[in-house]
Amino acid sequence: MRLSRYFLPTLKDNPAEAQIASHRLMLRAGLIRQEAAGIYAWLPLGLRVLKNIERIVREELDRAGAIELLMPTLQLADLWRESGRYEAYGPEMLRIRDRHKREMLYGPTNEEMVTGIFRAGVSSWRDLPRNLYQIQWKFRDEQRPRFGVMRGREFLMKDGYSFDLDEAGARRSYQRMFVAYLRTFARLGVKAIPMRAETGPIGGDLSHEFIVLAETGESEVYCDRGVLDLPVPDADVDYDGDLEPVIREWTTRYAATSDVHDPVRYEAEVPEPRRLRTRGIEVGQIFYFGTKYSEAMRAQVTMPDGSARALHGGSYGIGVSRLVGAIVQACHDEAGIVWPDAVAPFDVGLLDVKPGDPATAAACAELRAKLEARGIGVLHDDTDARAGAKFANMDLIGLPWQIAVGPRGLANGMAELKRRCSGERSELPIEAVVARLVDASTERNRHE
Amino acid sequence: MRLSRYFLPTLKDNPAEAQIASHRLMLRAGLIRQEAAGIYAWLPLGLRVLKNIERIVREELDRAGAIELLMPTLQLADLWRESGRYEAYGPEMLRIRDRHKREMLYGPTNEEMVTGIFRAGVSSWRDLPRNLYQIQWKFRDEQRPRFGVMRGREFLMKDGYSFDLDEAGARRSYQRMFVAYLRTFARLGVKAIPMRAETGPIGGDLSHEFIVLAETGESEVYCDRGVLDLPVPDADVDYDGDLEPVIREWTTRYAATSDVHDPVRYEAEVPEPRRLRTRGIEVGQIFYFGTKYSEAMRAQVTMPDGSARALHGGSYGIGVSRLVGAIVQACHDEAGIVWPDAVAPFDVGLLDVKPGDPATAAACAELRAKLEARGIGVLHDDTDARAGAKFANMDLIGLPWQIAVGPRGLANGMAELKRRCSGERSELPIEAVVARLVDASTERNRHE
Repeated sequence: MRLSRYFLPTLKDNPAEAQIASHRLMLRAGLIRQEAAGIYAWLPLGLRVLKNIERIVREELDRAGAIELLMPTLQLADLWRESGRYEAYGPEMLRIRDRHKREMLYGPTNEEMVTGIFRAGVSSWRDLPRNLYQIQWKFRDEQRPRFGVMRGREFLMKDGYSFDLDEAGARRSYQRMFVAYLRTFARLGVKAIPMRAETGPIGGDLSHEFIVLAETGESEVYCDRGVLDLPVPDADVDYDGDLEPVIREWTTRYAATSDVHDPVRYEAEVPEPRRLRTRGIEVGQIFYFGTKYSEAMRAQVTMPDGSARALHGGSYGIGVSRLVGAIVQACHDEAGIVWPDAVAPFDVGLLDVKPGDPATAAACAELRAKLEARGIGVLHDDTDARAGAKFANMDLIGLPWQIAVGPRGLANGMAELKRRCSGERSELPIEAVVARLVDASTERNRHE
Repeated sequence: MRLSRYFLPTLKDNPAEAQIASHRLMLRAGLIRQEAAGIYAWLPLGLRVLKNIERIVREELDRAGAIELLMPTLQLADLWRESGRYEAYGPEMLRIRDRHKREMLYGPTNEEMVTGIFRAGVSSWRDLPRNLYQIQWKFRDEQRPRFGVMRGREFLMKDGYSFDLDEAGARRSYQRMFVAYLRTFARLGVKAIPMRAETGPIGGDLSHEFIVLAETGESEVYCDRGVLDLPVPDADVDYDGDLEPVIREWTTRYAATSDVHDPVRYEAEVPEPRRLRTRGIEVGQIFYFGTKYSEAMRAQVTMPDGSARALHGGSYGIGVSRLVGAIVQACHDEAGIVWPDAVAPFDVGLLDVKPGDPATAAACAELRAKLEARGIGVLHDDTDARAGAKFANMDLIGLPWQIAVGPRGLANGMAELKRRCSGERSELPIEAVVARLVDASTERNRHE
């Protein structure tokens, strides 16, 4: 992509309304634009990150056997009356009347609707277990939206729902999602720690939050440092096999948000040098809620003996748009964003440091074509801006690699390659730059 | 994908509420489920079609130089007051008040918001031309939603917007989209004819609708049969070059919807044997509206001489969710849907015709693995249903190919391959079935 034909409105100054780094950087790097309180447009660069996260979330859920569908954003109030949540939900639910005065709402979550879909489509024990998910926009009318996309009102969420015949089955479904979440967050390039959590308005008796550690996070967390180094299951993990050992490994060490923190247990179980008290950002939560919705909504299947059985359910959320903010919050420095490779909007920033020089222009165009032909995403700054501004802009938007092509190096067939996360630079023959980036890309794909 | 682990709730009977074939078939084949009047959930099979259409739309727009972003579904009423459309829009606009009584709306289209984004991000003539698009859910509160997803209330639309310095540039942008639309619809496997159209509430003085011919379509159309055989530009069309000849070729022959039909011109220009009067479904519309929004919203750039210039705009829509209905309406027979290859939810239906036979089960599993390893999407009916029901179900959901594996053929290493669109069947060695499908898939990819 040539920057001269792209739409990347970066800001020079720090926007006054942004209180935290991720919000500030997302606005400055031209990722988002606020359209109303807690409501954002995703500009082209930000959308590429959002789509990368979406893709990885989808790949890992599909691997775990979940099936994607897509529910509408608007729902009938009557559906929520079946579960009793229409009156209970409070002012965060955006209530709407259509032209025929019919009561509707903008879905904040979808337990009722998916239970309705499942109830209509499935009648036999043979059709279980199932896990259905969607990646769709939701709305929660926060009293005080803040921190950019981290606590927005209109937000993109992956919400998944499992249906099982009994509690044992439902716990296996829960474990599958637990493992899929470990893999998803690891692939996104962040360390997300599962922590026992309260169940809140979803209900139920078992829940874990997945928390990305960041000192400016909204939740206070207490954990055993040992959880930071636990191994994440490989891509070939057997989701039909016994996941209990993985779950045990990840849940025995102390890790809790302040909501459920137990100082006595913490001090008894965690030796002082391993105690870590910090803050974090919730990026996912999983729930087992048993027959709460299926009993209220009479979602049943017929068992082999002809009896009716209420379904045992769980629900599983990942804050897809929130993750963009959480990743920036966890991955930035003074100069700007430092994207993890897997979610970066482009892999490489290519800088022509002498605009107007036909030789550097031609070399950049050739290099861009070569890299793109190998499936490497390139943002080529072919604008008239001066070199200093180009470098600062590339550091701000945080692509994992930068290539600078200037007339002096080019005379010897050389370009400068910089790794954004380490700041390491090296002067290399142009062919070696291509080879290095192709290797990095191959290596990355191998791990997916 | 194994059907025994999928979620595909097909219906045996014709749903009473569906008046037209596409609506009936989409419900019966388990593609969608109605959640409220004109509001549908996309079940897994339907979502796969929707995603395929989305992908092709995106690829062709990217090829034409358009840049994707994503705007929120909810917008502030004040933004629409700037253009004067808030009061003008009428009851099809879903008006909402949030918890702070702020006036909002669910976007039915996005000229105002994108103009606001562009105005904030661009200030110099150097940054033009640009074409920004999104694929996002919209809401229009139709008085009487009907025909399933063809006239729904919540619907997925690709809406794009071009910004140019003058009318000549804007016309080139318009022509680029005209060509991109020809390519998009051709790749989707439908014949969409561009027809001169009225501009309606978008405004402006130039517009074309793209109409898929279908006898049960909602619009009456009159055209010269010659337009049916015009060649669609190749993938290597030069969008920076002169597109005038293509446009001329596609717009000189008579083609009009009843809104703008001119019987005198029709009879004068089209010889009787070439006159075609039929019906059609609008799947896209493009508009050039000049400075209508940029003047009202003061969206200007600075010219080289320091003067301010209002932007010349166009907007370009494709009804992504409506297309699913239009394609089914155009591509079905008595037995069910007949998906064009490019949008089919899976490429192949694989039927084990003797459930419980370990030999057919093993052969099917091996065949599925082989095909999937080659990137071919397989829906493997491994359920206990009897063969007749499996065949009927596969015809209903309309995958382009069917492979039936039975014990007798298998004993000789053979399986039956059926092409859904022609009904042609052949008994082939299993390796030949694989080779045939791999060839078809390679051929298809070559044309993309």
